[in-house]
Amino acid sequence: MDIRAEVLTIGDEILWGQIVDSNSAFMCAELTKIGVRTVCKTSVGDSKYAVTDALQAALTRAEIVLITGGLGPTKDDITKKTLADFFNATLVEHPQAWDNLQQMFARRGRVINELNRAQALLPDKATYIPNDKGTAPGMLFTTPTGQLVVSMPGVPFEMKHMLLAYVVPKIKEAFTTPIIVHRFLQTVGIPEAELALRLEAWEDALPSHIKLAYLPSRGRVKLRLTGTGAQATLLKQDLEHEAAKAIPVLGKYLFSHQDQELEQYLTDLFVAQNLTLAAAESCTGGAFAQRVTAWPGAGSWFNGSAVVYTREAKIQLGVRPDIIDEQGIVSEACARAMAIAAKAFYGADYAVACTGVAGPGLPTDTPPVGTIHIACAGPGGAVVHQQLALLQDRAINIDLTVINMLNMVRLQIENA
Amino acid sequence: MDIRAEVLTIGDEILWGQIVDSNSAFMCAELTKIGVRTVCKTSVGDSKYAVTDALQAALTRAEIVLITGGLGPTKDDITKKTLADFFNATLVEHPQAWDNLQQMFARRGRVINELNRAQALLPDKATYIPNDKGTAPGMLFTTPTGQLVVSMPGVPFEMKHMLLAYVVPKIKEAFTTPIIVHRFLQTVGIPEAELALRLEAWEDALPSHIKLAYLPSRGRVKLRLTGTGAQATLLKQDLEHEAAKAIPVLGKYLFSHQDQELEQYLTDLFVAQNLTLAAAESCTGGAFAQRVTAWPGAGSWFNGSAVVYTREAKIQLGVRPDIIDEQGIVSEACARAMAIAAKAFYGADYAVACTGVAGPGLPTDTPPVGTIHIACAGPGGAVVHQQLALLQDRAINIDLTVINMLNMVRLQIENA
Repeated sequence: MDIRAEVLTIGDEILWGQIVDSNSAFMCAELTKIGVRTVCKTSVGDSKYAVTDALQAALTRAEIVLITGGLGPTKDDITKKTLADFFNATLVEHPQAWDNLQQMFARRGRVINELNRAQALLPDKATYIPNDKGTAPGMLFTTPTGQLVVSMPGVPFEMKHMLLAYVVPKIKEAFTTPIIVHRFLQTVGIPEAELALRLEAWEDALPSHIKLAYLPSRGRVKLRLTGTGAQATLLKQDLEHEAAKAIPVLGKYLFSHQDQELEQYLTDLFVAQNLTLAAAESCTGGAFAQRVTAWPGAGSWFNGSAVVYTREAKIQLGVRPDIIDEQGIVSEACARAMAIAAKAFYGADYAVACTGVAGPGLPTDTPPVGTIHIACAGPGGAVVHQQLALLQDRAINIDLTVINMLNMVRLQIENA
Repeated sequence: MDIRAEVLTIGDEILWGQIVDSNSAFMCAELTKIGVRTVCKTSVGDSKYAVTDALQAALTRAEIVLITGGLGPTKDDITKKTLADFFNATLVEHPQAWDNLQQMFARRGRVINELNRAQALLPDKATYIPNDKGTAPGMLFTTPTGQLVVSMPGVPFEMKHMLLAYVVPKIKEAFTTPIIVHRFLQTVGIPEAELALRLEAWEDALPSHIKLAYLPSRGRVKLRLTGTGAQATLLKQDLEHEAAKAIPVLGKYLFSHQDQELEQYLTDLFVAQNLTLAAAESCTGGAFAQRVTAWPGAGSWFNGSAVVYTREAKIQLGVRPDIIDEQGIVSEACARAMAIAAKAFYGADYAVACTGVAGPGLPTDTPPVGTIHIACAGPGGAVVHQQLALLQDRAINIDLTVINMLNMVRLQIENA
């Protein structure tokens, strides 16, 4: 009863290694969500022969084939012509596509030339799929045996919108996809292996219609419980029942029940409690502030961050020179002083700071690469500190330090 | 005479959409560099049948098949067993692999169990490829018709090192790859379409053994001239000769002749001239500092950045309240004042600043989303300013502002 899909991405630039194909991962993830199993993913160049060959192979293995790319006006529309030939169809101007094209160009104040107008041509055996974000329409074909072949543009935000708004509903219409409900448990600060050990008994006792996935990213592990069944309300109850058993085991490592990032969780926490945050960053070099402000709305709770890379900049922020001279620039005392200084400079309720050796460096470095001190100053003069012993890699060390800083702020507020 | 390759990545997590497969783009790019053409890229799950099927298909189309993934101890070594069966080979312990494994575990202070020891087993028809960065060795098979099948681990930094250190040399040994020389011209601040128009005549007149590629990234276009021939010295002369004709056309948009990022170029520039830089960031929220400090050695020329998200933080840094109240927080005057204040706070030779509306927002916003002012203060009180009119997307606006700030600093120094 498995519904199988294949993903086919088209473009010479993919095979030249000029771009990383992130489209196919998005499509696979969305298919997984609705209970469709991707069995193969293929990328071929802008060649009619290669596309036909790949499509033919895909149709021997799957009920659904999702294609992206090769629809631009400058690419000689290789995908559209190839699909028209494959399905024995003729290209004709589609009124709705032509309408959408005119509106798109009018909005951008541009004139349509013949090359552009050709984008409104569609194979007469295709169902038109609107492109609300661009000029190349999508196409859906149904084979005599009921397989679906869908062609979408390669521009990521056009494809993503089209997939979610039109293609997923069409798949659900054509196939009986199972009802799938997800429940998330987001953890931070505990390695995947340790987590798996703690949860082993619970995982083994899960009923057969509920599956657990460990989705690790740097410093965090997202647990996804997926329930499959016939009735959404019952599934949700089952998932809550199972999640409730895991929550006490996860303890302080659990930060959220939503599918969200740690910094999104912090945003909600600070906004709800009407608090403000600031930072002083040495070894993370602005990466903490960058991550927090990547989400809209940071202005209402994040006052700012002083990136103080040099000794002088730390002193200018308010760290006493004797602390640096006597305890060292990479020290608990310096991290604490930076947090206190940033809290005062930015007038914030909380301020978090870091100082350390991100690397790369020599094995003889003192302190060694990966030694990082973080501290957080909160209301009433409370300052917490933690020393991290990280790795040799600069980018990973910066990233892990940011995660640890975010988590330190969370714990200090939740324990307040 | 084309040498064709296929890339095969193995892993259920790729097909579930849990990870973006960046390995294959890296492999394709490295193959392109040595004149090998990738004709197809396939991802399949951890299934013996799927891997065998994909490998069989690949060998009908290509001389070289590069495989990654499925080599970990927890995955039941699906790739290794499958390849052993495919090539009618027996798994035996390889002395060098066993040696390497023991050394790896000793360095990490860990004990080897039986599951780990199995990683030293190799098909007896495979050539051992050392893994200097991890525990799963690579394997190379040669088919009776001289095709190469190479299996590498899926961990990106292990694969990358193995590919460059061992696999590329083996490909060059087995096939007569053409001699390929690249010449880069890095531009910033000019759209790809405008650049293409300016370079049209030059590109059309390029000799047939020299190809031009436009490699665009946000705000920048990397031009890559690729010369193919039999003699490296002559090729280099030809490339210099052609590049020299383009340089005057590129003018101030050309920032580097190396394959490097704009911030790497700035690092070299500041270090060579013994100068220091600081920043004051509002709408970029630390992204400028983050990008500059992502590269090692920033400590010697980058003093820091004041991320001043709020009105109060800007005033605390040194911006006069009346400037904000009379001209607005998003204004030329505020950007200039921020640059001057950051220069003083950090005691730097140059300081660059930004203030603007990154978005998302409403169409009725005043000033509209995408309005961003940047300014750079240099020696002797010189301050330059630029107003940007960017897009609706927050992440893109932040990224483009950072690029424009980097470029503003470059131009101010080069014009000094």
